[in-house]
Amino acid sequence: MEKHALLYEGKGKRLYKTSDEQLLIAEFKDDLTAFNAEKRGSEAGKGALNNKISTQLFRILEEKGIATHLVKTLDDTHQLVKVCRIIPIEVVVRNVATGSLVKRLGLNEGAELPFPLVEFYYKDDALGDPLINDEHCLVLGLVKSESDLEELRRLGREINRILKSFFAGRNLTLVDFKVEFGIDKDGTILLADEISPDSCRFWDTATKEKLDKDRFRQGLGDVKVAYEEVLKRILAQ
Amino acid sequence: MEKHALLYEGKGKRLYKTSDEQLLIAEFKDDLTAFNAEKRGSEAGKGALNNKISTQLFRILEEKGIATHLVKTLDDTHQLVKVCRIIPIEVVVRNVATGSLVKRLGLNEGAELPFPLVEFYYKDDALGDPLINDEHCLVLGLVKSESDLEELRRLGREINRILKSFFAGRNLTLVDFKVEFGIDKDGTILLADEISPDSCRFWDTATKEKLDKDRFRQGLGDVKVAYEEVLKRILAQ
Repeated sequence: MEKHALLYEGKGKRLYKTSDEQLLIAEFKDDLTAFNAEKRGSEAGKGALNNKISTQLFRILEEKGIATHLVKTLDDTHQLVKVCRIIPIEVVVRNVATGSLVKRLGLNEGAELPFPLVEFYYKDDALGDPLINDEHCLVLGLVKSESDLEELRRLGREINRILKSFFAGRNLTLVDFKVEFGIDKDGTILLADEISPDSCRFWDTATKEKLDKDRFRQGLGDVKVAYEEVLKRILAQ
Repeated sequence: MEKHALLYEGKGKRLYKTSDEQLLIAEFKDDLTAFNAEKRGSEAGKGALNNKISTQLFRILEEKGIATHLVKTLDDTHQLVKVCRIIPIEVVVRNVATGSLVKRLGLNEGAELPFPLVEFYYKDDALGDPLINDEHCLVLGLVKSESDLEELRRLGREINRILKSFFAGRNLTLVDFKVEFGIDKDGTILLADEISPDSCRFWDTATKEKLDKDRFRQGLGDVKVAYEEVLKRILAQ
């Protein structure tokens, strides 16, 4: 399967058409952005690491019954994925208070939340991906009905349950993560985009060391070393 | 009934204890603040106008079955109110897109919303009263359960239904408003605080002229003239 015309370029990936109109090729980029792309950088090999990490995690989720857009990994930086219409809602699930949640609500940094907190953000770069509530989703026409939002929440919580448990066995705390979903031609909701240290926060459970994009956001260095460590722990038997 | 010790001073009102521990005296101030109190001003007589307007609107709502904290108006700037524990959630109901909603979500200024939109904001000056979703309310412990939030939404929508209809008969469009609720000693949820041109947006239905605090926010002048016009239309037979 070969790349045809470029369909879309995002901050972390490019999407290409293929000879099959039901399939796209996703190319993982080495670019890093933070704070609504106000901070930009690049890390050679980051795209390949995210491709490997995301592939592993999507396979684990598929085995547990979560439908995803992933068909197969093609090479270091490319995946074959199903065409779907991305729902413009970033679904964030949080187990521990950090980042924007602490700034917005004055919670204590690192506090364990009483339950996995689900948030919706309107996926719109120009508006800075603002937090939205259920009624905003309906006013904006991002989904058809309240039941679609319940399904996004259910999927977010289920992905969290599976991955939190998986990482706990690898001495990694899944602090929070962002996922995106798409709707395929049959109306099925598919997990799309990626799950990687670009879109999750992972803390070493013992030392609390950050092993994710916060190393880039906060200028802590060793970004690639951290992503490699996450992959190593995922692949450990 | 006389004022005893000052219990609380907010941006628009002071609350005093009385000889009856179940009752407080609310004093309406002439101060005006906007943009999280970054803009400040004062308008002589504004407090008295808001006291009169809020008293009228609370009476209309009481007649339609909404429980409120208002016992009676004492004089130009004072009300006798029931003691209640204020729920730290600002309940905003919007019929027309304007203000922060337009900025945050990119909706068209002045667009009629497809349904009355209810939003919750965390009542916390230091944090700038951030928008929150239902799960934030529970994480922050602002209410006991999801059903309390459903009740706040139901009350917000019911108040909107009653007041929107009332003002429509007076050539005023109720664009949006903010209300606060308290819980009394019996656990009943009471409408508290005030409903006035400080906490609502009113547009003349024919001319779209703004007759509310946006005149102060946007430096349009004639703030008191606008508040007097709102009171005049409320009192019209």
